[in-house]
Amino acid sequence: VNEDRITARLRRHSPLIGDDCAIIKAPAGKDLLFTTDFTIEGVHFTRDLPATQVGHRALLRGLSDIAAMGGTPKYCLVSLAVAPWAGERWTDDFYRGLLGLASQHKTQLAGGDLSHASQVVVDIVVYGVVQAGKALRRTGARPGDRIWVSGALGGWHHQLNPKPQLAVGRKLIGRATACMDITDGLVLDLHRLCLASGVSGELEDIPLLKNATIEQAMFDGEDYALLFTSSKRTNPGFCIGSIVEGKPGRILYQGKPLVPRGYDHFQSNSSVD
Amino acid sequence: VNEDRITARLRRHSPLIGDDCAIIKAPAGKDLLFTTDFTIEGVHFTRDLPATQVGHRALLRGLSDIAAMGGTPKYCLVSLAVAPWAGERWTDDFYRGLLGLASQHKTQLAGGDLSHASQVVVDIVVYGVVQAGKALRRTGARPGDRIWVSGALGGWHHQLNPKPQLAVGRKLIGRATACMDITDGLVLDLHRLCLASGVSGELEDIPLLKNATIEQAMFDGEDYALLFTSSKRTNPGFCIGSIVEGKPGRILYQGKPLVPRGYDHFQSNSSVD
Repeated sequence: VNEDRITARLRRHSPLIGDDCAIIKAPAGKDLLFTTDFTIEGVHFTRDLPATQVGHRALLRGLSDIAAMGGTPKYCLVSLAVAPWAGERWTDDFYRGLLGLASQHKTQLAGGDLSHASQVVVDIVVYGVVQAGKALRRTGARPGDRIWVSGALGGWHHQLNPKPQLAVGRKLIGRATACMDITDGLVLDLHRLCLASGVSGELEDIPLLKNATIEQAMFDGEDYALLFTSSKRTNPGFCIGSIVEGKPGRILYQGKPLVPRGYDHFQSNSSVD
Repeated sequence: VNEDRITARLRRHSPLIGDDCAIIKAPAGKDLLFTTDFTIEGVHFTRDLPATQVGHRALLRGLSDIAAMGGTPKYCLVSLAVAPWAGERWTDDFYRGLLGLASQHKTQLAGGDLSHASQVVVDIVVYGVVQAGKALRRTGARPGDRIWVSGALGGWHHQLNPKPQLAVGRKLIGRATACMDITDGLVLDLHRLCLASGVSGELEDIPLLKNATIEQAMFDGEDYALLFTSSKRTNPGFCIGSIVEGKPGRILYQGKPLVPRGYDHFQSNSSVD
């Protein structure tokens, strides 16, 4: 694997690669959105996952963050540290998977870095835009709002090809009072949203993916559905509960408080490490 | 090490942290600059480097890329995967070193990611701005231009606290025909600049840091000086040679061709791995 050779190959996909920085025109009337997400061997995936899927999922994580803000992705930067077991073929497949998803969402590769490590480490940056002042935040949920998800849940076990919910996110602008994507599990992520908004949440019915258990729907990560709150009843998706006054971040399910556990990378994944 | 607790602590430094993306106002009359750089244990540093220095150097790499384009840094995103040997104290020191350099250059922490790996992996993103249409590129060197460096060279062995050359970069706008920063060694980086511009380069005198050898000045990485070309003779720094017609990327030293080797992360660093 030779850095200049891989860079030369990627440059065919993007005229923005080749200088110390990518240069991008500032958009008029928009706010800029930035997000960065790791995808690490042994933490987010294991070696048996095909390289194209690793590339797909790495970008998915960033696109899903843009969706959660109601934004439109524009460019991505990809930093890849390859491991000794992952050769040039693996690297090519990785970029192929990533660039496939990028082109579906008109997201251009604008740069990155390439190095090596004892395990594969990917860090992806996505830059997107949103109407100025209109980005969806986590802070606006108010007592009386209903809680929604954009699709059925069940965690990564039950998702073959999760898609970033970009169209749903854009539709929610002006309608959702708060929004985020579910990546670490419904309960932990709803806890975070309620904490940011200073409210409590009451879960009622949770729509399940085929064969998924309620436990998986609540605590597994990588659903990539949008979780949002709204006082309106005409939203896309499923209503799963409501926002109530109470201790910030407290989550109740059928009247009982839940421990906000989920996929915290520092606590729950020693099994794949 | 708990993700939400560290995030809460970092949020005190930045109101931008807390949503799925950072939201930033688009600047008027500017182009946006993006760069991303890995800093990996065993590749870019060893465990005996103090954590504050690891943080400092991680950000330095990104700021130096912004300097190389003539830009001004605005925000950074920091993705950190901690290793089992690096605990909460190490993590605190890392961020302290990084945020110290950030505040010197008015660069605000706008987000990031936190995970773990078997070795420490940092990926830094810096977002900056530059006057629209004025960014310094690698492609504009022309035969007859002189080649310059912003300071004496010698590689990382001889640099205690390298600084990003942001003021020099901004001064070069409208004066330099091509520019980049020296991170992988003078000869390899000049080769890249000449390749991008379709020209050859002739090196004459190279200014050395105290105790550095000419070999180190040519082939060691991490100088963080700016390397640029210009037809003007009033530039800051040292004139080290000139651009000539010839095979794109060919570098001559005192009349003899040099092999463009240097710090390629895939080839030369097995000694620290």
